[in-house]
Amino acid sequence: MQSWIESANAPLTDFPLENLPFGVFRTGKSSDARIGVAIGDTLLDLFAADESHLLDGLAKETVAACRRDSLNHLMSLGRKASSSLRARLMDLLSDPGAKQKVEPLLQKQVDIEMQLPAHIGDYTDFYASIYHATNVGRLFRPDNPLLPSYKYVPIGYHGRASSIVVSGADIHRPSGQTKTAEADTPHFAPTQALDYELEVGFFIGGGNAHGCSIPIDEAEAHIFGFCLVNDWSARDIQAWEYQPLGPFLAKSFATSISPWVVTMDALAPFRAPAFRRAEGDPAPLPYLNSSVDQTSGGFDVKLEVWLRTERMRRENTEAVRLSQSNLQDLYWTPAQMLAHHTGNGCNMRSGDLLASGTVSGSTDDSRGSLLEITRRGAELLQLPNGEARSFLEDGDEVTLRGYCEREGQARIGFGSCSGTIRAATPSCENVESLSKQRIGGEATP
Amino acid sequence: MQSWIESANAPLTDFPLENLPFGVFRTGKSSDARIGVAIGDTLLDLFAADESHLLDGLAKETVAACRRDSLNHLMSLGRKASSSLRARLMDLLSDPGAKQKVEPLLQKQVDIEMQLPAHIGDYTDFYASIYHATNVGRLFRPDNPLLPSYKYVPIGYHGRASSIVVSGADIHRPSGQTKTAEADTPHFAPTQALDYELEVGFFIGGGNAHGCSIPIDEAEAHIFGFCLVNDWSARDIQAWEYQPLGPFLAKSFATSISPWVVTMDALAPFRAPAFRRAEGDPAPLPYLNSSVDQTSGGFDVKLEVWLRTERMRRENTEAVRLSQSNLQDLYWTPAQMLAHHTGNGCNMRSGDLLASGTVSGSTDDSRGSLLEITRRGAELLQLPNGEARSFLEDGDEVTLRGYCEREGQARIGFGSCSGTIRAATPSCENVESLSKQRIGGEATP
Repeated sequence: MQSWIESANAPLTDFPLENLPFGVFRTGKSSDARIGVAIGDTLLDLFAADESHLLDGLAKETVAACRRDSLNHLMSLGRKASSSLRARLMDLLSDPGAKQKVEPLLQKQVDIEMQLPAHIGDYTDFYASIYHATNVGRLFRPDNPLLPSYKYVPIGYHGRASSIVVSGADIHRPSGQTKTAEADTPHFAPTQALDYELEVGFFIGGGNAHGCSIPIDEAEAHIFGFCLVNDWSARDIQAWEYQPLGPFLAKSFATSISPWVVTMDALAPFRAPAFRRAEGDPAPLPYLNSSVDQTSGGFDVKLEVWLRTERMRRENTEAVRLSQSNLQDLYWTPAQMLAHHTGNGCNMRSGDLLASGTVSGSTDDSRGSLLEITRRGAELLQLPNGEARSFLEDGDEVTLRGYCEREGQARIGFGSCSGTIRAATPSCENVESLSKQRIGGEATP
Repeated sequence: MQSWIESANAPLTDFPLENLPFGVFRTGKSSDARIGVAIGDTLLDLFAADESHLLDGLAKETVAACRRDSLNHLMSLGRKASSSLRARLMDLLSDPGAKQKVEPLLQKQVDIEMQLPAHIGDYTDFYASIYHATNVGRLFRPDNPLLPSYKYVPIGYHGRASSIVVSGADIHRPSGQTKTAEADTPHFAPTQALDYELEVGFFIGGGNAHGCSIPIDEAEAHIFGFCLVNDWSARDIQAWEYQPLGPFLAKSFATSISPWVVTMDALAPFRAPAFRRAEGDPAPLPYLNSSVDQTSGGFDVKLEVWLRTERMRRENTEAVRLSQSNLQDLYWTPAQMLAHHTGNGCNMRSGDLLASGTVSGSTDDSRGSLLEITRRGAELLQLPNGEARSFLEDGDEVTLRGYCEREGQARIGFGSCSGTIRAATPSCENVESLSKQRIGGEATP
């Protein structure tokens, strides 16, 4: 399918006519946030689309729901509503006759600033890559890398919602308690083992009532769409704090997500079998067992991590790809994660974010974190320009990319999820003044 | 101090003139939520108080901020605002001359329904009782109950915000994966080890900017007030799922909190020294070390757990007290928890909830969970009517209470935090219809 927007027809665009991911943007610091869909190197402003009365029927009702500063309400409307809107927008963006009316509603992506797509009530991070779990487990328990629960339980934990930021936000090196093997006591200092994690997240569309589980075969109807997630991690803080209650401050300083939410509709041509369990592996328990797993429980999404150091920027050399993996290699499907998460009656709300955990593959070039690549810093990662890394250094820019490619299908891209490491800010000068301002004034949220 | 409201002067009331905790109530299912303060067996409707123009100055500005359906905005205004409002309300509720004007603004507590006091963006649960950590650790590692990090790190984890419910809400027995020691494989079924945890929570008033830590000596200025928390736990699910990422579905099915938020002002007369560390224990690292700890880092709040079984209700016998402990026995102060939590730059938002973890004391009658009392079900708890418990049974009502008492001071109470265990709902009949309704309709949040 061709669009009258030329850039949407470029072979390597992330945002062809068949994608139309949803996002939230502002045209400037002081302007209101609005919802748009990406198409080529532009976006279509859905607030303006509603104003222009270009749509009718359910698509018209749905675009009216897009007069908000987040996708939560649209997400809550369910698949039929967003599918209907997407289909009608595809018509308008491919019909040359609509060009005159629709073109004024476009904005160049370079001119706008993307926001978080949703108010995220709760954020959950899973551990769904068996290769990642094995790589990490091997560092701590060489003889017994995988815990006995792994093949039965989609392991996950609650993450911090407040510190989720959109791609492009700088990441300040966090401080925390760490203890080296040689030291008698811990100390508090900026982390020396800052890492990224290559992940994919999915947003909840319609939620479930508290106390009512979502059955596995209903689960995908509750998923609105996908984004990229970088679960930044401080490995030295993590090692000292994580027993017995799991990761906490090692992760909660920041999590970056890509701004565009790629819908289930756009991903439909890229369904893939769920993970093929090895001979002798247990079958999923019935509440996690879906009849469609063997044909289409998974998603064939190619994932990449790129690094550009301060020196590369200074010398004007390109970023370096550190790894490639595929969402298809997850041991657990998104539907299994969601059915498991609600199996105890836990309620999901529209806009909640569930992430996969680090997506690693079976090969050395598919390890989704530096922890795995450098074996916890033991083996330096050599970069082509002579630099080397055990973990991230200040000035390093990490970019995640994701895309679907298949013969005969348009390429569906996720855009990118980037963040640059900045020096630690051991004391913010505004903290004291903040707590004074608070008195009688509105607090920083 | 005496109020013209007689019930506020009763010696054992939780809500004398000196307390005035804030909460959110509705007068009926279809009415809007409003903010009120508890006084004796009534509450003062702050929406009505604003309408009646009884206040002036900062108190008037502040009461105008109470025209909301949650305390978040009031919390964000900082201590000076809420203190000023509380002081002026104390005047009005003690001055017999104000009775005629104020009395019409009162509602009987029995006539209203309490709501969650705030929209809780993020919920964090700590593990701050060294007695609890030791009791639990001993069950798993008899020779080495306390992990080496415990005396350095205020251990905590992110909890689930969506499933926090207000006192009075029924708790359905959750299902989940468990595996007994004898079984080869796990199964999915209602928990057989449902437990309560006696905790205290504190709400964030003014937040901090992302990336900026809150210094220990500023931390209390960011705390708005306290409530009771019951962190319901399914011990069998927890045992099977918690490695390596910590508790997840064993806790996220429900957390109950008491509806009234007792302010830092009301608690001021009950400050107490922080935990006295044993000879040889490390001093807190500098970022957790406050000059006021030795005099007033802690809070002298008496805490109790009461159980009333189905049979006790049927036979009309009273609830039984299972334990008594004191918030003063926490190894870490609330200020230390907050300074630690933001030490990595994690941002707090007004209305975020941080809880203490189970508050147990050093004695056998001060163990704050059945896990500890029955040593993981190994020793039955005998009740006076001949019943016995290893863990909770359907129909059991658990009530937490908290109060401060000290010679020469008015008693400051927290009210109660109750929940009754109901049978598991393995499949909610409305789940399928929900996911159908979703399509084109508004989702259940």
